[in-house]
Amino acid sequence: MGLAVVTEVVDSNQVNMVSQHAAILQVGARNMQNFTLLEKIGKSKCPVVLKRGYSATVSEWLTAADYLLAEGNEQVILCERGIRTFEDSVRFSLDISSIAVVKKFSHLPVIVDPSHAAGHRDLVASLCKAAVAAGADGLLIEVHPNPEEALVDGLQSLSLPQFEKLMNELRPIAESVGRFI
Amino acid sequence: MGLAVVTEVVDSNQVNMVSQHAAILQVGARNMQNFTLLEKIGKSKCPVVLKRGYSATVSEWLTAADYLLAEGNEQVILCERGIRTFEDSVRFSLDISSIAVVKKFSHLPVIVDPSHAAGHRDLVASLCKAAVAAGADGLLIEVHPNPEEALVDGLQSLSLPQFEKLMNELRPIAESVGRFI
Amino acid sequence: MGLAVVTEVVDSNQVNMVSQHAAILQVGARNMQNFTLLEKIGKSKCPVVLKRGYSATVSEWLTAADYLLAEGNEQVILCERGIRTFEDSVRFSLDISSIAVVKKFSHLPVIVDPSHAAGHRDLVASLCKAAVAAGADGLLIEVHPNPEEALVDGLQSLSLPQFEKLMNELRPIAESVGRFI
Amino acid sequence: MGLAVVTEVVDSNQVNMVSQHAAILQVGARNMQNFTLLEKIGKSKCPVVLKRGYSATVSEWLTAADYLLAEGNEQVILCERGIRTFEDSVRFSLDISSIAVVKKFSHLPVIVDPSHAAGHRDLVASLCKAAVAAGADGLLIEVHPNPEEALVDGLQSLSLPQFEKLMNELRPIAESVGRFI
Repeated sequence: MGLAVVTEVVDSNQVNMVSQHAAILQVGARNMQNFTLLEKIGKSKCPVVLKRGYSATVSEWLTAADYLLAEGNEQVILCERGIRTFEDSVRFSLDISSIAVVKKFSHLPVIVDPSHAAGHRDLVASLCKAAVAAGADGLLIEVHPNPEEALVDGLQSLSLPQFEKLMNELRPIAESVGRFI
Repeated sequence: MGLAVVTEVVDSNQVNMVSQHAAILQVGARNMQNFTLLEKIGKSKCPVVLKRGYSATVSEWLTAADYLLAEGNEQVILCERGIRTFEDSVRFSLDISSIAVVKKFSHLPVIVDPSHAAGHRDLVASLCKAAVAAGADGLLIEVHPNPEEALVDGLQSLSLPQFEKLMNELRPIAESVGRFI
Repeated sequence: MGLAVVTEVVDSNQVNMVSQHAAILQVGARNMQNFTLLEKIGKSKCPVVLKRGYSATVSEWLTAADYLLAEGNEQVILCERGIRTFEDSVRFSLDISSIAVVKKFSHLPVIVDPSHAAGHRDLVASLCKAAVAAGADGLLIEVHPNPEEALVDGLQSLSLPQFEKLMNELRPIAESVGRFI
Repeated sequence: MGLAVVTEVVDSNQVNMVSQHAAILQVGARNMQNFTLLEKIGKSKCPVVLKRGYSATVSEWLTAADYLLAEGNEQVILCERGIRTFEDSVRFSLDISSIAVVKKFSHLPVIVDPSHAAGHRDLVASLCKAAVAAGADGLLIEVHPNPEEALVDGLQSLSLPQFEKLMNELRPIAESVGRFI
């Protein structure tokens, strides 16, 4: 496991500039079907995280990935980040079954963002454990040295000690499913 | 882990009769808000599995459980079995975050039924692993000696060898979260 | 247009008693798939309003109606009352397209309950007009002589002057689609 | 009622070019939260139809409109085109209550696209009538001289005689709510 600069791009004009500085581009949920952007990133051949639109079916998500693949970009990582449902105790309902469905129909790696799905740090550990056990290939976790003072997304961010504790808890689960952290 | 006869009751008139034969009563998703039935089962003091209605919020689910508890029945087990969403690759979307939400607001045990949620056996193992890792207190898995010849729910049922394999895979995950199978 | 006593029954034991006093029985949204109750009401041959479950598809709703029809009860009225969605400005989203879908696949009359769907009286007039124009065969509107003092559902209830004003506004719309009020 | 060339723009680079030829720009549902595009169109001061994202709340829709208004573009038309729900008899569920909700919180005109919502021409007439009665300020209806041979969206397109018949049916409804066609 390593560290990488992942930067969201929201407009096709930004792709060239951002790809010079970021190791991995990110297409946010709201842009999953911004096909102009997808084609531009596809041509760039940059590694890219494609977040699932929060009301996109798995099938539509894989179709969006095809826009990247069709331009010859093979470094595509899918990211499940929750879907919009009627449930109101979380910001988005993490669709845990999407991991197995993606693995059934695609060779692409799929990572999980439990922080944006839950919207509250109390729920993040349980969702991370579930994601690893379900077969996710990675996690995108919000961490902040001082969550109370974070400018955005503080409520869903883990502190560094919470993050370290969680990593320790995740390790044996990862091993149980033949992976390592 | 043991075996118990769990029988669904769908009408308040059946409670007395069924409770003489079944170790555990089950209230199905469609009856989660059948308050006459809940009160009757509450009075019976029989152990009961309360399935979440497939479009009930966690808050409504806990309120339904209160109808059982209010009559003095303390043997209430909650069962997450998927919610209705727009996603069409599964029959219902297993709401994995409900486990942590229930644990935050209630002392009641919560088990997970991945079979009815997924609707297909291919997805059951991944969902079981996720549920155990997320902190579920039990699983309700459809198993059939010969799924191809099952009268109902065959497509989502595991064969006995598949079930045994899954149990072996679940054991280390359970241990990772301080539980055992 | 006339007036009738419509009474909700929530348990199969109540059917005989209630049917002696009410002109029309009502099966609430939460009981749409309470099949024991449906069969009992089917046998009673009483006129019945079958509310759509708030997460039931039109197809499931028509199937529930078949439980009533199969017992020989031909006086079945369907009632659209909104479905559960992510939209949070209303209690339930009135599914206006269900009227045309029902008319395409069934001969049963369909009425609309805008009050429970909207959850607020400000929205009721617009929904009533839409329902009549879309082809609904009737409306179920909450009215209260003094909504501010209503024990339940006051926020969604019209006062008598509001109701009278609405009826006057609905008349020409009804005539436009070949109906009358 | 008049005719106007409405053209969808999907990328911020297209705004200048398209706005020289089209009378009205259209932001599609998938781009409702493409904020770069919205700002560019806002600056262009071109009349614009902002379609509601199919899983956007009314509140998010009005916020998206604010991106256009904030740049000084006052010619903003909202367009309800259906939301994603579990209901599978239609492509999208037309959210008829959004019309009254928009009118309560905003001064912006709101039009309705029943064709994309329904996905089938059989349902279009009922939805158009509902929209006009509910207070919509306009309709966006798919029409094709020969729907069977349409390259896209043929199934949801009306033929010219069907369109003419519908217009005749809509006129008295519009008059009933103080409007005219």
